[in-house]
Amino acid sequence: MITFDILTIFPDLLASPFNEGILRRARQDGHIDIHTTNIRDFALDKHSMTDDRPFGGGEGMVMKPEPLAAAVEQVRNHRGAGKVILMSPQGTMFTQELAEKLAEEEHLILVCGRYEGVDERFRATYVDEEISIGDYILTGGELAAMVVIDAVTRLVPGVLGCSDSADKDTFSRNLLKHPQYTRPRVWNEMEVPDELLSGNHEVIEKMRFLESVRRTLARRPDLLKLETFSDSEKKLLRRHGLYAAVKSLQADSNSTV
Amino acid sequence: MITFDILTIFPDLLASPFNEGILRRARQDGHIDIHTTNIRDFALDKHSMTDDRPFGGGEGMVMKPEPLAAAVEQVRNHRGAGKVILMSPQGTMFTQELAEKLAEEEHLILVCGRYEGVDERFRATYVDEEISIGDYILTGGELAAMVVIDAVTRLVPGVLGCSDSADKDTFSRNLLKHPQYTRPRVWNEMEVPDELLSGNHEVIEKMRFLESVRRTLARRPDLLKLETFSDSEKKLLRRHGLYAAVKSLQADSNSTV
Repeated sequence: MITFDILTIFPDLLASPFNEGILRRARQDGHIDIHTTNIRDFALDKHSMTDDRPFGGGEGMVMKPEPLAAAVEQVRNHRGAGKVILMSPQGTMFTQELAEKLAEEEHLILVCGRYEGVDERFRATYVDEEISIGDYILTGGELAAMVVIDAVTRLVPGVLGCSDSADKDTFSRNLLKHPQYTRPRVWNEMEVPDELLSGNHEVIEKMRFLESVRRTLARRPDLLKLETFSDSEKKLLRRHGLYAAVKSLQADSNSTV
Repeated sequence: MITFDILTIFPDLLASPFNEGILRRARQDGHIDIHTTNIRDFALDKHSMTDDRPFGGGEGMVMKPEPLAAAVEQVRNHRGAGKVILMSPQGTMFTQELAEKLAEEEHLILVCGRYEGVDERFRATYVDEEISIGDYILTGGELAAMVVIDAVTRLVPGVLGCSDSADKDTFSRNLLKHPQYTRPRVWNEMEVPDELLSGNHEVIEKMRFLESVRRTLARRPDLLKLETFSDSEKKLLRRHGLYAAVKSLQADSNSTV
């Protein structure tokens, strides 16, 4: 059971993704609990200002420290200390590994940054971890918080049924997943590859491994640089003319093929 | 004006993020148009099955090709060809650069994958681009589609007002943004750094540059590897004892400090 607190100036934005699909079921079954707090309720002035211009100049607005601090304090009074996470493009990169680490926590307080960021003094005082979900800019941290909650929730034991599958393969190695096929066997004049119909587990595994490597070479060479291969895998890569490409990719990194 | 079509088996999941904040305003002002199509409406059997077991075995379910293809065809009949994007962890990485490229399109058809992926033959026939928003696994492509729509929409001319700012700084260089401060000048016994109050533009820019480099060194050395610096910047880094750390980081990459 993980409790998620979300601090935002757009609480309504977060409603629907938590009320559908796997997240809804996870809430109903008591695997997770989600609370939303409106930062604006903690603004000090009559205009409910939560942002102001940056000292030193520059475009955009910075989120003021007082309302953020007061919101965190109230959440902590109600539901305990928790781990405070700031969603921002300046954070460390969110990965499956980090999702697994966060899935072991009991209480996460996610602060959704907006505008040009939050006052540094709030960050220094309250934030335990600053996380970015990718190298792109969003209108705010709300979608990023949802992404983190979704990725963490599916790792909580009991949340995923068999039809969803915990997908242990992807990202357990630095390889993209192989192509998948389901019925019908012939669709749009295209057939499912013979290997997959062979019933021969070894043939299927070899084919899937080679397709994974080909796909990763084409789309994510950065991932392949980090991967290591067993002797039998190297032999297989050599036999299918993939070894040279993989090796040259890894030449300037620390990994060894 | 960009038209977004989203193909999903959870259309309700997507409601609230598009009805709040900047995305709502962008829709009202006619900068973007969003349509949601339920893939389940195109299932062929009476149980509205949109997924089935993978050929060759393995955990989880694969999305069937026929309902996906029929959904794309209907969207195209109504609103033109568009560019078909599959949201999946096997895609190329979404970046600010890719967001800028997509912001030039007129019609994007975002297919939300679920389970273990979609049938490869659908991908090969219909998908123009397969995109991943990060190296983590979500319960489905819906949140990823929202992230793409959000990042692309804020780049459409006219969408952002001055208070939101187009944030040209972050990711225009391979450096994280410097810390930000706003009023009050003293909060929680912490003062805003003197440099930011100096009114001296050069002093402020130097301080912000150094803070950016320090932050990137600590949190995202992978970004810093890609960055190049001018002669005056190198001098500044040397004077503040940062040059050696940056240089050693870049030693095994192609970039030069």
